[in-house]
Amino acid sequence: MNENDEKRAVVLLSGGLDSATVLAIARDMGFDCHAISFDYGQRHDVELAASDAVAEAFGVVEHRTVKIDLSAAGGFGHSALTDDIDVPMDRPSDEAIPETYVPARNTIFLSIALGFAEVLDARDIFIGVNAVDYSGYPDCRPEFIEAFEKLANLATAAGVEGSRPFVIHAPLVNMTKAQIITRGVELGVDYGITHSCYSPAPDGAACGHCDSCRLRAAGFETAGLPDPTRYAL
Amino acid sequence: MNENDEKRAVVLLSGGLDSATVLAIARDMGFDCHAISFDYGQRHDVELAASDAVAEAFGVVEHRTVKIDLSAAGGFGHSALTDDIDVPMDRPSDEAIPETYVPARNTIFLSIALGFAEVLDARDIFIGVNAVDYSGYPDCRPEFIEAFEKLANLATAAGVEGSRPFVIHAPLVNMTKAQIITRGVELGVDYGITHSCYSPAPDGAACGHCDSCRLRAAGFETAGLPDPTRYAL
Repeated sequence: MNENDEKRAVVLLSGGLDSATVLAIARDMGFDCHAISFDYGQRHDVELAASDAVAEAFGVVEHRTVKIDLSAAGGFGHSALTDDIDVPMDRPSDEAIPETYVPARNTIFLSIALGFAEVLDARDIFIGVNAVDYSGYPDCRPEFIEAFEKLANLATAAGVEGSRPFVIHAPLVNMTKAQIITRGVELGVDYGITHSCYSPAPDGAACGHCDSCRLRAAGFETAGLPDPTRYAL
Repeated sequence: MNENDEKRAVVLLSGGLDSATVLAIARDMGFDCHAISFDYGQRHDVELAASDAVAEAFGVVEHRTVKIDLSAAGGFGHSALTDDIDVPMDRPSDEAIPETYVPARNTIFLSIALGFAEVLDARDIFIGVNAVDYSGYPDCRPEFIEAFEKLANLATAAGVEGSRPFVIHAPLVNMTKAQIITRGVELGVDYGITHSCYSPAPDGAACGHCDSCRLRAAGFETAGLPDPTRYAL
């Protein structure tokens, strides 16, 4: 270990508003950021293009995209965010959790980020989960993050042997969308290059009508800040 | 949920002695087993061939192999079980953990198994970790398994909503290799089709000299049972 290791962080980057803000926060805290994105068969690769743009805008040390093909294992099968996968079992129709819930997604993403961090000798992992506006997702809650942090320090050689424990940073977890946007604008985030829409036009323009677009637009309105999102006409 | 869901389990299967025994134990407990293996760039695909043979011998419902390419994220980089990957940082040479340790491997495997289980509406996951003969691996200890089980029930829709919690079964965790072999033989496991060697001959024969071969051979000897392993001449 040397002093520089303590300034090195892994940041999960989706290209959305939340993870762009988290990257800005991590940079503001003085971390050298190694961004990691996942190509898991999202319907829209505009999301991955946005993550490239955000990574570049914030001068990350590197930006890695990991391709995960889980089609052999049910493939994130239930989610409206991925498609054309046979769903082995129907979920109850009175389900409180949104259709966009992806089974074990954040657990899988954080696990891979943990391996990456251990290889880098980094101990800080940043993730843009938010429990306020997405309270339906179990893996966006503070208790999930705490449980993962505990696991990380039991699971790894670095956690067991090292004097520096892993820390899972989820700085947005208790913030509203308006608070996130306000903080990001303070830190210089250009939200025009981020992507949130679940159903974008072929040219990447946001639909303005899906849950994600509506939450995002309401956030700018509540924050009293101009919405730079490019909407489909 | 229906009654049959409770008899359904996901079993992590490597093709080695331990996971073959775990599959036999899960079958003996009455579970319909969905086996999952991982192709993560192991040096020797004889391991994957062995997992196929074991899955077939025990009449699993299905056997899925998930390919994970983590080369973009340091790629399980430090381990002697994978190769030709650039390692970003040197690990200390006085390291107590074996060179065959793979960063975050069991965390990543269990996370993917968790997603698979949730898609199947299964709540039981079996893994052949063993803390006695591999005490150097942090992610083979009972406290790791307990922490993952806790995480699983916080991370998932099924865990949060369901009346049936996830259970991570690690039936070998406190057994010696001789005890594992004795139990497996009682349950009819043919260890001749399993593979443990870290350095097999091109035809798949075991070297007889690596740590894994020596532990395995000593296990048969201590158990007083014939060793069906095919060793290289």
